[in-house]
Amino acid sequence: MKENMMKKLDSHFGDVNKLYIGEIDMKNFWEVQDRKIIYKSGIVSFKEEKCYHTKKKIIHPFFKMEFLDWVNIVPLTTKEEVVLVKQYRFGINEVTLEVPAGTLDKGEQDPQLAAQRELLEETGYSSNDIVSLGKVAANPAIQNNYCHFYLAKDVILTSEQDLDLTEDIDIELVKLTEIDSLISSGQIKHSLSILNLLYAKEYLNK
Amino acid sequence: MKENMMKKLDSHFGDVNKLYIGEIDMKNFWEVQDRKIIYKSGIVSFKEEKCYHTKKKIIHPFFKMEFLDWVNIVPLTTKEEVVLVKQYRFGINEVTLEVPAGTLDKGEQDPQLAAQRELLEETGYSSNDIVSLGKVAANPAIQNNYCHFYLAKDVILTSEQDLDLTEDIDIELVKLTEIDSLISSGQIKHSLSILNLLYAKEYLNK
Repeated sequence: MKENMMKKLDSHFGDVNKLYIGEIDMKNFWEVQDRKIIYKSGIVSFKEEKCYHTKKKIIHPFFKMEFLDWVNIVPLTTKEEVVLVKQYRFGINEVTLEVPAGTLDKGEQDPQLAAQRELLEETGYSSNDIVSLGKVAANPAIQNNYCHFYLAKDVILTSEQDLDLTEDIDIELVKLTEIDSLISSGQIKHSLSILNLLYAKEYLNK
Repeated sequence: MKENMMKKLDSHFGDVNKLYIGEIDMKNFWEVQDRKIIYKSGIVSFKEEKCYHTKKKIIHPFFKMEFLDWVNIVPLTTKEEVVLVKQYRFGINEVTLEVPAGTLDKGEQDPQLAAQRELLEETGYSSNDIVSLGKVAANPAIQNNYCHFYLAKDVILTSEQDLDLTEDIDIELVKLTEIDSLISSGQIKHSLSILNLLYAKEYLNK
């Protein structure tokens, strides 16, 4: 799969584009008539858009969350260990095991630099060999943002953690060969962490 | 990877559990002091919890979204074509190509039945051979819910679509062998769709 996953579309591109013939028509079905901000806090905002369907002649409210882009990074040591982070997560009221991750800061343009920053802040590890593994839409139904995936090769511990006051993060080194078991058992359960790990394994052909 | 991904943890389980020694202490750092509902609409609610950190003696507001669980399903025909859905998504203002998906209805208990229901409603296809591929936490940092993944084998067209008034969904049959290209090119970009497709390919050993 690696070859297909990592290369850009080549000869298929013409055919694939045909899938999108209907795009413009579909886009034009809904018109935003009104927009109200429900919640705004720092770099996050939640909006309700009252939309009008030009064919069906109906009005419906849609909910939308606006975030800055997110970054996830798989840090790999020379001993083929993955540096994971363990932290309490409010969404599910549990401590989870994840890859280092975070959001772009306001004004921050380069997701790769953001990923390297998050890696250093959350773990104290850094790398001079960062591989971009692509990006995905976090949840296009209700969110506007993308999550960018990276692999940091040959990471080394270069500093102390530099955490926000509200963060408590422990580090766990896990063998790359144990990642599949941790995913299948549900110990690693964050959808974006799993996707980043699978992309990294694919890239490494492991 | 298939073998590892699909089997439950066996001999590793003891070791893996050691990763969670700190869990109880970390859980007890934050106490919810106040909780207010910011937005509630149907089966979705957004809350802000004012929390007190018992060690650091600080108060901080955390945002949390409560959804019912979600389901994603990869429908595969006997000709090894995947039945994808194409629809306008408000989050990114684009038409996307995704696997059939949805949320559990209020009172609906069985995610597999929900996935079969969504498959039938969105595409008109159905199957008597559904495989469960596990679940992931959609985003444990800010959401409480899980997304359950399925593979529907040997699907056949058995009815018309049965869409909500607010839905406009087109069907696209794509060869299973073209899925990797569609992901790498960004044509398929929804994080959960991609994860479901990778799990299905892993299960099918393709």
